[in-house]
Amino acid sequence: MYYTLKINTPKRIAFVDITEKVEEIISKSEINSGICYLYVPHTTCGITINENYDPSVISDINNVLSLLIPKSGTYEHTEGNADAHIKTSLINSFAILFFENKKILLGTWQGVFLCEFDGPRERKVYIKILPC
Amino acid sequence: MYYTLKINTPKRIAFVDITEKVEEIISKSEINSGICYLYVPHTTCGITINENYDPSVISDINNVLSLLIPKSGTYEHTEGNADAHIKTSLINSFAILFFENKKILLGTWQGVFLCEFDGPRERKVYIKILPC
Amino acid sequence: MYYTLKINTPKRIAFVDITEKVEEIISKSEINSGICYLYVPHTTCGITINENYDPSVISDINNVLSLLIPKSGTYEHTEGNADAHIKTSLINSFAILFFENKKILLGTWQGVFLCEFDGPRERKVYIKILPC
Repeated sequence: MYYTLKINTPKRIAFVDITEKVEEIISKSEINSGICYLYVPHTTCGITINENYDPSVISDINNVLSLLIPKSGTYEHTEGNADAHIKTSLINSFAILFFENKKILLGTWQGVFLCEFDGPRERKVYIKILPC
Repeated sequence: MYYTLKINTPKRIAFVDITEKVEEIISKSEINSGICYLYVPHTTCGITINENYDPSVISDINNVLSLLIPKSGTYEHTEGNADAHIKTSLINSFAILFFENKKILLGTWQGVFLCEFDGPRERKVYIKILPC
Repeated sequence: MYYTLKINTPKRIAFVDITEKVEEIISKSEINSGICYLYVPHTTCGITINENYDPSVISDINNVLSLLIPKSGTYEHTEGNADAHIKTSLINSFAILFFENKKILLGTWQGVFLCEFDGPRERKVYIKILPC
């Protein structure tokens, strides 16, 4: 069994904070403590955990990624989104979170972000939860 | 208990699609739905999930990685494969996959790749499967 | 239930080998074979698996990361550690390890490193262990 989270991303490059939506899914499950697995079934969209307090952190991550991997580089893939595929492999397509008493064990500044690199689109995150 | 997948990589840098081999292992197990964990016990070889339809996507990932982390940079490690170690830490040494009714829950374009950065060699992927 | 590993990092950028400490936690648990999950609840500190035999490998990883993502770039985040946040998202905040008969299934050269990018600080690693 797995859950599916649907997220509409607002523009080509955008990190969407999904922390609360993940916690809602955990709170509806019958498991109090365990591991929550997140899997992104896309190749131009990933997932990361980073600061969700000061939004400049996310801006900086995206600015540096786009500087290192520009949209219009010399790419073989002709769909105009080669940069988005490369970023996805660097950022990662899955994440794990711990939770205790239905609360995700995050650090003070941590949030969970869906990383859109080729939006805007409707994206999915698959979620599985194991007691532990 | 764990499974071991053995993969012969064809050259120094090569992404080998292991999706079908992983699904074979899942199909032989007694678990119908769950999580499949992949672990690469090497330091110059990683694992990633990305598009396996148009091979130019993988070429672009490798071209950009080699542009950012060239083989002959100014490295302290004297074995000639410092670039391969650095790429491995960026790409990652493990992955998780979900499966339902023995089928991996992949996105339309997704495949699982063993990322060889210092081949050709015989490489291993360790696999564990949990019902969930 | 989860374990907490506390690590004092020695300087701003430092990879600390935590392999033995993780194995100690596994050896104290009642589980002989399974999966060990590591989660770093920080946004300027990550975790990676790479060579722990020749320390020049770790130096090279850090030198290249700092070349690609310099401390004093043009960042929006004004706390002077934007580089550390970006590196954390590239390196990752979690890891999985397999173990059999209380021993981590590592490759010959592999070790597990806490990756400090904005130290020195006291850092934590949360650990959960599942039989498998």
